[in-house]
Amino acid sequence: MASPARLVMNGWYMGAWADEVGRKLMQRWIAGRPVCFYRLLDGTVNAIEDRCPHRRFPLSLGRLDGDVIECNYHGYRIDGTGGCVGVAEQSDRPKASVHRFPLVERDGVVWIWPGDPEQADESLLPDTSWLTSPGWTHVHGVVPLKARHLLLVENLLDLTHETFLHPGSIGNAAVAATPIDVTSEGHRVSFTRHMVGIEAPPFYEKSMGLTSPIDRWQDGDFYAPGIFQLNIRLAPTGTEEPEGFHMKVLYGLTPATETETHDFFALGRDYRIHDEELSKFQLDQQLAVMKEDVDALEIQEVMVATEPDGVRESSIRSDVAGIRGRRLLEKMAAKEAGAAAPARRTRPAATGAATGVAT
Amino acid sequence: MASPARLVMNGWYMGAWADEVGRKLMQRWIAGRPVCFYRLLDGTVNAIEDRCPHRRFPLSLGRLDGDVIECNYHGYRIDGTGGCVGVAEQSDRPKASVHRFPLVERDGVVWIWPGDPEQADESLLPDTSWLTSPGWTHVHGVVPLKARHLLLVENLLDLTHETFLHPGSIGNAAVAATPIDVTSEGHRVSFTRHMVGIEAPPFYEKSMGLTSPIDRWQDGDFYAPGIFQLNIRLAPTGTEEPEGFHMKVLYGLTPATETETHDFFALGRDYRIHDEELSKFQLDQQLAVMKEDVDALEIQEVMVATEPDGVRESSIRSDVAGIRGRRLLEKMAAKEAGAAAPARRTRPAATGAATGVAT
Amino acid sequence: MASPARLVMNGWYMGAWADEVGRKLMQRWIAGRPVCFYRLLDGTVNAIEDRCPHRRFPLSLGRLDGDVIECNYHGYRIDGTGGCVGVAEQSDRPKASVHRFPLVERDGVVWIWPGDPEQADESLLPDTSWLTSPGWTHVHGVVPLKARHLLLVENLLDLTHETFLHPGSIGNAAVAATPIDVTSEGHRVSFTRHMVGIEAPPFYEKSMGLTSPIDRWQDGDFYAPGIFQLNIRLAPTGTEEPEGFHMKVLYGLTPATETETHDFFALGRDYRIHDEELSKFQLDQQLAVMKEDVDALEIQEVMVATEPDGVRESSIRSDVAGIRGRRLLEKMAAKEAGAAAPARRTRPAATGAATGVAT
Repeated sequence: MASPARLVMNGWYMGAWADEVGRKLMQRWIAGRPVCFYRLLDGTVNAIEDRCPHRRFPLSLGRLDGDVIECNYHGYRIDGTGGCVGVAEQSDRPKASVHRFPLVERDGVVWIWPGDPEQADESLLPDTSWLTSPGWTHVHGVVPLKARHLLLVENLLDLTHETFLHPGSIGNAAVAATPIDVTSEGHRVSFTRHMVGIEAPPFYEKSMGLTSPIDRWQDGDFYAPGIFQLNIRLAPTGTEEPEGFHMKVLYGLTPATETETHDFFALGRDYRIHDEELSKFQLDQQLAVMKEDVDALEIQEVMVATEPDGVRESSIRSDVAGIRGRRLLEKMAAKEAGAAAPARRTRPAATGAATGVAT
Repeated sequence: MASPARLVMNGWYMGAWADEVGRKLMQRWIAGRPVCFYRLLDGTVNAIEDRCPHRRFPLSLGRLDGDVIECNYHGYRIDGTGGCVGVAEQSDRPKASVHRFPLVERDGVVWIWPGDPEQADESLLPDTSWLTSPGWTHVHGVVPLKARHLLLVENLLDLTHETFLHPGSIGNAAVAATPIDVTSEGHRVSFTRHMVGIEAPPFYEKSMGLTSPIDRWQDGDFYAPGIFQLNIRLAPTGTEEPEGFHMKVLYGLTPATETETHDFFALGRDYRIHDEELSKFQLDQQLAVMKEDVDALEIQEVMVATEPDGVRESSIRSDVAGIRGRRLLEKMAAKEAGAAAPARRTRPAATGAATGVAT
Repeated sequence: MASPARLVMNGWYMGAWADEVGRKLMQRWIAGRPVCFYRLLDGTVNAIEDRCPHRRFPLSLGRLDGDVIECNYHGYRIDGTGGCVGVAEQSDRPKASVHRFPLVERDGVVWIWPGDPEQADESLLPDTSWLTSPGWTHVHGVVPLKARHLLLVENLLDLTHETFLHPGSIGNAAVAATPIDVTSEGHRVSFTRHMVGIEAPPFYEKSMGLTSPIDRWQDGDFYAPGIFQLNIRLAPTGTEEPEGFHMKVLYGLTPATETETHDFFALGRDYRIHDEELSKFQLDQQLAVMKEDVDALEIQEVMVATEPDGVRESSIRSDVAGIRGRRLLEKMAAKEAGAAAPARRTRPAATGAATGVAT
């Protein structure tokens, strides 16, 4: 059975949509750790380890009293820094604390850094200003996925799957038929796919009123370990930028545990931005497309988890972005594992060897 | 992931309420072993390993023929001692047997000793004569719990949790606010908590008609590995024993498997003992309180089972009884594990180190 | 916990009934491997590993295009030999393939060889021509079983269990009371049980109109690892062959995984072969009997899987066939495991030692 690759802890993951977090305590598992999300009295988002330092009861089941959480099992009181400030009804003041996670709230997203706080670097976050830009609107949410993080990363870095998995909405033959250009730098892997003079897929036909032939661009950026943005342009064939319809999709690919993932999404557009019916249609479509992905990835997880050791993969040119993404994650995980155990982790057991592709 | 501590096998556990056991064979798992409970023709309770010596089919699915169980798979016939006395329809008389467990039936309780029968010592059982005393009445039952035994032991040895987990019934601020006195000797850990001039919690107000202020006593005795008795006194403030309302609670804390526990209980009182409506009210309340505990402990089990190695606990004065109880269990388990492996078992992985408390 | 014995891979297992396989792709797990069954354009049955060589998506969720399966994740195209013949919409022609399993379609059965194709030998298949013989008719199907393969093998090789588990249909005291003769050769273990002057069990009374006393024969042949045939004769006491009612049962005992088994069956007769009501009655009865077995075996699986190491079994004369069957499987598995690890595998952990029986 193929074990999942070690999770990358030092990186920004989407922890929540800002509108999910309030004065009601919320538990969410992030990269194998239980996290309690809430807002302090001044409105700041806060996230601490959701395990009482006393007897491990989830703090998220406790009571929020000002900025202090009172554990509902024996009354330990934990302030916003994660420090214990006393025990309800008792005079003890135990020296104890739980981890407080670095957070950034920006453009309606709460980013969380599950690893070493010293390394948390806000400048690693990509630009997501379109989420709050006046010329844009978007729908967003989060979908649970019972599959390992890497499978979702690879899904998004090889969009040829749209042709086969999403033929009724966003996919048609042109996607698989059009090669990508791939570049990478640092923790980023990018691809561009510019389809010219193609038929409009159903989803875009309906939501834009475009008639074929059209040009369709898919420019994707993966910021390892967990952020993916897709820039989409659709326009009558031959027209040039900035003409056309623009869409952006932000995915937060956040491991919950080694084999479960939160699939955060925001789908934005720069046209008919006040058309609520269109927003509702796009949300429904996006959720339908993601359900097709979730169904496929959960089956793929079973296939990967039950395979014997030593299964080798076949890869082709369209896998180049996915393979680079995987290698980035491997490199980051190996670095975190330290010099002690790098040799065995050059390739995650979950995904085997890629062959036949120069990357 | 924190593995459960090794179960203590040499000790009395509650196996069943006497009224559960009759001529109908009953399977119940005790300390990781399947046990078949039933009564012999003369009314004696009997318990043998519930696994046929032939092909492991549960004997409890067989047919009781006099004092002999006939296995329903291939007809092995097992008498009350656990010995095979033949095979139905066949002339073979195989030398085979299953374990017969030491039992004591007393005061309506069937006690079982899952470990070495040579060490079974009836004098280790605490006095439970109030269960059948003419001046007392009680309600009783058993509740399934998907959490390791130790978590239930610690729950009962630190009743400050009543303040937070059971505020609507038996808990109020006074419980957590009142320190305990702890004593221990041999396999027993005892605590007393005498609350004076406090407000009456809802449960007692209703069932006794008491008005505040009252005095409330909680005197608990844990007999390791699996028996807990609580003596409760409620009375108008300032009155002395024997004035007041007395209640007793017997808990049988019986591991089913390493991570599942039978939570046996009897709740008794020495007042309005013929009031069946009150008995029904007290049973409902007791089950409601236990449901709050079960919900909390099953969540705690998840938190403990998924935690990384090396999690340390914070402890305070109110944990003294719980910590002594845990150490007793550790010592007993280590002794059973023998001289071969004591060093690694000075502290169970499940619970980590207690700090900051002199016990 | 007792682990299952290693599965025997080099042998014929029933993969499907011929009428289950058509132009619709079908996934079935065989001996721990996912298999995609379908028919080629010329009607030939085909079975390939159900895991795309690209990213492990099940091919059975793909689209059948002539004799080529197109994977529904990224479009890999796999022909009937298991070889990749291209990728839809892309010009790549990756060198990749999946395993193609040796198959034999005969008498309405699709036999599959999950191990080394070089060793697949059609002559190892027993004669099943009665399935399509003009003087016979049969009902057939497959029942899922959550228990390890060996437990089902042993169930069928010791029919004394009919007396206890199936008293309302095919079992009565005579079965357990009548000893068997056992012979074996190569990969076959056979037993005969000839009951003379016995009462007719309910199932046969109803379906044949026989009145007691009758003679009843049960002659069973186990072809390791996974085929069992039972020849049944019922006739008024004292009459000789070929007089009487004849029935045959074919069981395909096919491991799905280490702890799950496909229980294929065909129940045939040589009388009233055009009586469809009788066929329906016999199918219902057969399924009812198999449900009794499945319920028992699934409980037995729990007992075996949770038992401590070192449990020893008691065995009697009626176990001789079962023990020989088990030893055959052990020997075959040990041979496959190779010279490297035979010493540890002389006896599967799942079943322990048999004692007290000369076999």
